[in-house]
Amino acid sequence: RVLLGKCRVSTAERGIQAENYVKHAPVTLLRPGVDTEDSVRARFEKVIRDAQDSICAAISEIDGKPFHQDAWTRADGGGGITRVLADGNVWEKAGVNVSVVYGTMPPEAYRAATSNATVNKNKSDAGRVPFFAAGISSVMHPRNPHCPTMHFNYRYFETEEWNGIPGQWWFGGGTDITPIYIDEEDMKHFHGTYKAVCDRHDPAYYERFRKWCDEYFTIKHRGETRGLGGIFFDDLNDKEPEKLIAFAKDAVNHVAEAYCPIIKKHINDPFTAEEKEWQQLRRGRYVEFNLVYDRGTTFGLKTGGRTESILMSMPKTAQWAYDYEPAAGTREAAFLEAARNPRVWV
Amino acid sequence: RVLLGKCRVSTAERGIQAENYVKHAPVTLLRPGVDTEDSVRARFEKVIRDAQDSICAAISEIDGKPFHQDAWTRADGGGGITRVLADGNVWEKAGVNVSVVYGTMPPEAYRAATSNATVNKNKSDAGRVPFFAAGISSVMHPRNPHCPTMHFNYRYFETEEWNGIPGQWWFGGGTDITPIYIDEEDMKHFHGTYKAVCDRHDPAYYERFRKWCDEYFTIKHRGETRGLGGIFFDDLNDKEPEKLIAFAKDAVNHVAEAYCPIIKKHINDPFTAEEKEWQQLRRGRYVEFNLVYDRGTTFGLKTGGRTESILMSMPKTAQWAYDYEPAAGTREAAFLEAARNPRVWV
Repeated sequence: RVLLGKCRVSTAERGIQAENYVKHAPVTLLRPGVDTEDSVRARFEKVIRDAQDSICAAISEIDGKPFHQDAWTRADGGGGITRVLADGNVWEKAGVNVSVVYGTMPPEAYRAATSNATVNKNKSDAGRVPFFAAGISSVMHPRNPHCPTMHFNYRYFETEEWNGIPGQWWFGGGTDITPIYIDEEDMKHFHGTYKAVCDRHDPAYYERFRKWCDEYFTIKHRGETRGLGGIFFDDLNDKEPEKLIAFAKDAVNHVAEAYCPIIKKHINDPFTAEEKEWQQLRRGRYVEFNLVYDRGTTFGLKTGGRTESILMSMPKTAQWAYDYEPAAGTREAAFLEAARNPRVWV
Repeated sequence: RVLLGKCRVSTAERGIQAENYVKHAPVTLLRPGVDTEDSVRARFEKVIRDAQDSICAAISEIDGKPFHQDAWTRADGGGGITRVLADGNVWEKAGVNVSVVYGTMPPEAYRAATSNATVNKNKSDAGRVPFFAAGISSVMHPRNPHCPTMHFNYRYFETEEWNGIPGQWWFGGGTDITPIYIDEEDMKHFHGTYKAVCDRHDPAYYERFRKWCDEYFTIKHRGETRGLGGIFFDDLNDKEPEKLIAFAKDAVNHVAEAYCPIIKKHINDPFTAEEKEWQQLRRGRYVEFNLVYDRGTTFGLKTGGRTESILMSMPKTAQWAYDYEPAAGTREAAFLEAARNPRVWV
């Protein structure tokens, strides 16, 4: 791999060190002596690294192709493990990233990372914000237009005192699904799985996080959602960390159960060239959402995160057509209707 | 065409009225009684509408297919004319937009529209900014990977007093080229045409605008430019409007001369599947630049501009590959080298 002088400079200018590639993923990406074994940071790292292993295993078993791994560290500590399955039998592109990063970030990146009102109301941009962030994120784009794209992301964030705002900690994340066509039974299974997860931790969570998901994944300039929902939460610190780490763990550990049965059901569905084209147009919408609105993407690009890991979420192929509107009564029109007026599936 | 209730709401929330489609483009999109015939506004509208006609005619003559036209107006006045040539013989997607819009915009949109330091340093967000904007913008994506993509945009902006900042006026724009492979002779022709245009108006312009173009079209998270440059300028009001309108007119009227000979030269070049794939990856970069950094796109989406007109700049097809780096010594590597270290062509 050729690493570029220019990219390194650009990364350094954004205040974060360039990455060094390592042959084997380190046992831990945490700070020796700082992040003790019983800290939330250390326990969350274990949750996401275990989840990366088990989810990649489940996906590879269906696809028949292994994930390629790139592991990298930064001189000051932290790093990431990126796993990508490209040109698979079932998935055109699937990736699962884990990263643990810390340092200081510019205020605009802090604002991109949180929807916390205090942080966003404070207009002074003085100084940089000390932070710690650990997360897992994943997008999987299948070939077959009857197999949905799926995304999940679970993260834990800490900031230290900055600009008169006390240090904060919070969990964020969610799992959401982006079919190309509606299959009601699939949506009941997917949403049902996450409703059950939520209900085990708080009876109000599913309703709250389902709505938040539809709001968050809205492509504002289109007036439509990216997909058909799931759960999404951010700035979550309404219970003690102990309880929230248990919730995040339960949620990330149900990704395979929520998604894989849907893939197995449609893996051999026949499809037409028109259906493939509709998939490509929806992939274009996926790109629009991620590059224009997605907080993880904008945060990552602004803080000098590893571009190839962040943009692993891009589909392999996407299309745009000028002013395309499917004919009334078609399955394509039914999908758009659900994207414009989000439904309750369970 | 089905127009969506939800989209209308979304547009209205952003403070700009929804568009009404009209069968024929109005003779003028200006304000009767306000924008008199000899105003810069009226004269600039004529420049861009004439250019839209002549450039579309030149492109259609090469392609063999006509442009489709959508014209729209807003109840309070203003509107646009969008012309698209989709699935042509030579161009996969080509579009030329003209729009004249006025009203008030949120401060964040004002900041997206200008790089003026005073506007951007003032952190107060009080009130909305009264503005007038007229512009032509165009992107043309050919099928053949040996035929470059080309973009141009020329605009005139006025704001009225806002938040203690006096009203401003300025011209902005440029023409730039995005080949997939380097052809030095083509670059000499393209840049040479614009150097000659610039030199007729100010001996310092070409050098200044060529550099500005490379800076502006940098994909920061990649450390590379979108294409191989051209000219770019913004917030231009260093001469009287009379002289700047003459410069903008000269520049937009040389689009066809700068671009069409290059297309004609390569129109029948044979190409391989690998060359087509490299084109697709570069198209992915085009999408990244436009959705993440392009001022016209972000301004348009934030002010509730017509999404289909703004995103007409998207290629029909694009691809992403994880961590792809062309082999040393290839033509692909040579292109990347020029994108990472912009060259001087004339």
